[in-house]
Amino acid sequence: MQSEHMKIAVLGGDGFCGWPTALSLSDKGHDVHIIDNLSRRWIDAELGVQSLTPVDSIQERQRVWYEITGRRIHFHLIDIAGDYEVIKQWLGKHRPDAVIHFAEQRAAPYSMKSPHHKAYTVNNNVNATHNILNALVEVDLDAHLVHLGTMGVYGYSSIGAAIPEGYLGVDIATLDGRKKTTEILYPANPGSIYHMTKCMDQLLFAYYAKNDGMRITDLHQGIVWGTHTTQTRLHEQLINRFDYDGDYGTVLNRFLIQAAVGYPLTVHGTGGQTRAFIHLQDSVKCIEIALNNPPKKGDRVEVFNQMTETHRVRDLARLIQKMTGCEIINIPNPRKEAAENDLVVKNDKFLNLGLNPITLKEGLLDEVVEIARRYNRRIDRSRIVATSAWTKNIAKTLIHDPESKGLKSVG
Amino acid sequence: MQSEHMKIAVLGGDGFCGWPTALSLSDKGHDVHIIDNLSRRWIDAELGVQSLTPVDSIQERQRVWYEITGRRIHFHLIDIAGDYEVIKQWLGKHRPDAVIHFAEQRAAPYSMKSPHHKAYTVNNNVNATHNILNALVEVDLDAHLVHLGTMGVYGYSSIGAAIPEGYLGVDIATLDGRKKTTEILYPANPGSIYHMTKCMDQLLFAYYAKNDGMRITDLHQGIVWGTHTTQTRLHEQLINRFDYDGDYGTVLNRFLIQAAVGYPLTVHGTGGQTRAFIHLQDSVKCIEIALNNPPKKGDRVEVFNQMTETHRVRDLARLIQKMTGCEIINIPNPRKEAAENDLVVKNDKFLNLGLNPITLKEGLLDEVVEIARRYNRRIDRSRIVATSAWTKNIAKTLIHDPESKGLKSVG
Repeated sequence: MQSEHMKIAVLGGDGFCGWPTALSLSDKGHDVHIIDNLSRRWIDAELGVQSLTPVDSIQERQRVWYEITGRRIHFHLIDIAGDYEVIKQWLGKHRPDAVIHFAEQRAAPYSMKSPHHKAYTVNNNVNATHNILNALVEVDLDAHLVHLGTMGVYGYSSIGAAIPEGYLGVDIATLDGRKKTTEILYPANPGSIYHMTKCMDQLLFAYYAKNDGMRITDLHQGIVWGTHTTQTRLHEQLINRFDYDGDYGTVLNRFLIQAAVGYPLTVHGTGGQTRAFIHLQDSVKCIEIALNNPPKKGDRVEVFNQMTETHRVRDLARLIQKMTGCEIINIPNPRKEAAENDLVVKNDKFLNLGLNPITLKEGLLDEVVEIARRYNRRIDRSRIVATSAWTKNIAKTLIHDPESKGLKSVG
Repeated sequence: MQSEHMKIAVLGGDGFCGWPTALSLSDKGHDVHIIDNLSRRWIDAELGVQSLTPVDSIQERQRVWYEITGRRIHFHLIDIAGDYEVIKQWLGKHRPDAVIHFAEQRAAPYSMKSPHHKAYTVNNNVNATHNILNALVEVDLDAHLVHLGTMGVYGYSSIGAAIPEGYLGVDIATLDGRKKTTEILYPANPGSIYHMTKCMDQLLFAYYAKNDGMRITDLHQGIVWGTHTTQTRLHEQLINRFDYDGDYGTVLNRFLIQAAVGYPLTVHGTGGQTRAFIHLQDSVKCIEIALNNPPKKGDRVEVFNQMTETHRVRDLARLIQKMTGCEIINIPNPRKEAAENDLVVKNDKFLNLGLNPITLKEGLLDEVVEIARRYNRRIDRSRIVATSAWTKNIAKTLIHDPESKGLKSVG
């Protein structure tokens, strides 16, 4: 069944990863249904920012996709976290073969912005995930659930081993004093409220796989960079969103924008943080691979590490400086995290299933720089710097506009 | 400070463990504030059951306590899970020295009753715990948070070791191939939606201790039996609630009621489940010990195993049969769990701090049998058997009224 055409629900299909995934699956001939409450558009309005790229309405996106390809992507306005009955009825009526779950608040800085944002992220993300699981059981639907998790569930303070794909082998002392080897879910160590909700998701998944035999795949994704995929390039109105602001912009994409508009690259702390990365096109490819390789009923949750390479933040900054001649400055880190960390991550499973990674070569970085130059006039320089602090004490140390401080380049 | 009089908020102080805890702390001279949304009383109405013991209104309980002791217990009607602003304002204004958190839906069978009950339990418990943590950070209050967790976070399928107090020592293979010993939060293995929410609480606590330096104690409690404490005995109107129904009645108390009213003891499956137990009076005592031994700022979450002995369910049934001559029957297990399990649990920490356990001797079991006989007329025999099934397939196997089936005694 998995290699044939499926009916697929893409929850959160209007977002940064959801939209290109929906296009790609539709392109392959699957019957794609986007379910979204459009919260990401509302958050743009709340924050007073906008995607660097001009994003059309979901209805206009549907229309253009049909015009170009003759394929329909369906859209259903449903608030999964808030409307259990509605999502349950939808699943019971449409009975998709697979459900891809992107429908969560996905920015760590946004989740730390205020007590309200912490509460919203916990309430929204936990209830969204639980409502989906609860509903699939109630309507007795054996759909494969594919969830976009994060590398952040592992934390960045190494426990000394390479990070395996979800499960860690350990030796424990048994009652008779001998050692026994067993595998456990990798101990969660979230660095923000957002990351914590993804750790809570893991518990929900493990429970529903065990109690109800649900088939679940959890993808622990690195930081996504890039913005185009094969399908988003087909028409200007199919373009993906691109976040460059301090809350939703992720580190590599934000650096590239800074370089493009002559704003110094703002490195948090020493820039010694090592992070995992993946190009958006590979992210879409990984989700397809995961869809085609579901766990069997009764299996534990399948976990893939969805990343292709690791880099230290200051090394990324230097790479971009070399390409563009931009300035680099170090500013206080708004996050509470280790100043320096190493990161060794296993990603054999996707590689063995045929992923051929797009690595971070200069030529591909040009894609983002080109986007930045093209939509330069839409950039609000005052929104580039991250201002959400992890604690009140950290908040007091932050520099909201490095340019006005006359900070010196350190690059 | 800890041995002197404190201002203490008892969240969920109208419930089965909360009420005797509030009385005991007030008796010791602490300034006790009960915060409760009275949801447990509403659930009685929903289920069409009532406490075996007649429970007065919280206001009447307050009045009687003052009349007898001259001490005031304050009461504030607040829905912690639903009203973030209200609990935040209360904490900011009253600034308690300690917060004891009982304010969660606490029955596994109730959490499995229907999709609605699953969703309610997740939403209520996760948001209640997070709102408290979030509010304590926002109002900048360094109160010691003491939470009532459950032995169920460990699960009952042994990983081969004695269950330590929260943290498990493991050896892991490091990058250079050598083994390294480290301590991790014991891998969660919840058996129901209710238990899962307590596992999610653990993640919330670990995060807030790490990010915000909160001082948190998590008590992993066994199954509570008994109903009286020194203070609840002082006056008939101070009596504690006593649940005997299939959703809220816990195994030992329910067996004792069955024996008292001549209803056969209903053992789930083979009765091979081994569980941890503690008397209510010891539970109250443990909470006081925990209050007097808070972690220091910057410490990881303090975890105690709040239990005093373990027993196999069928052995409990036989013990009660020996005392009372009652019948025992085996009925299908509504839960999805191992038919037989061993359980070895460490509880050295409370013992070292002075706990002197009340063990399950026949004389003390008489306390409950006496309650059962006294309030015999309030027992609805049709509500004794557990009917909430863990899966739809299990639901089909259940026997809702063993008496009408003419099942034979196996005792």
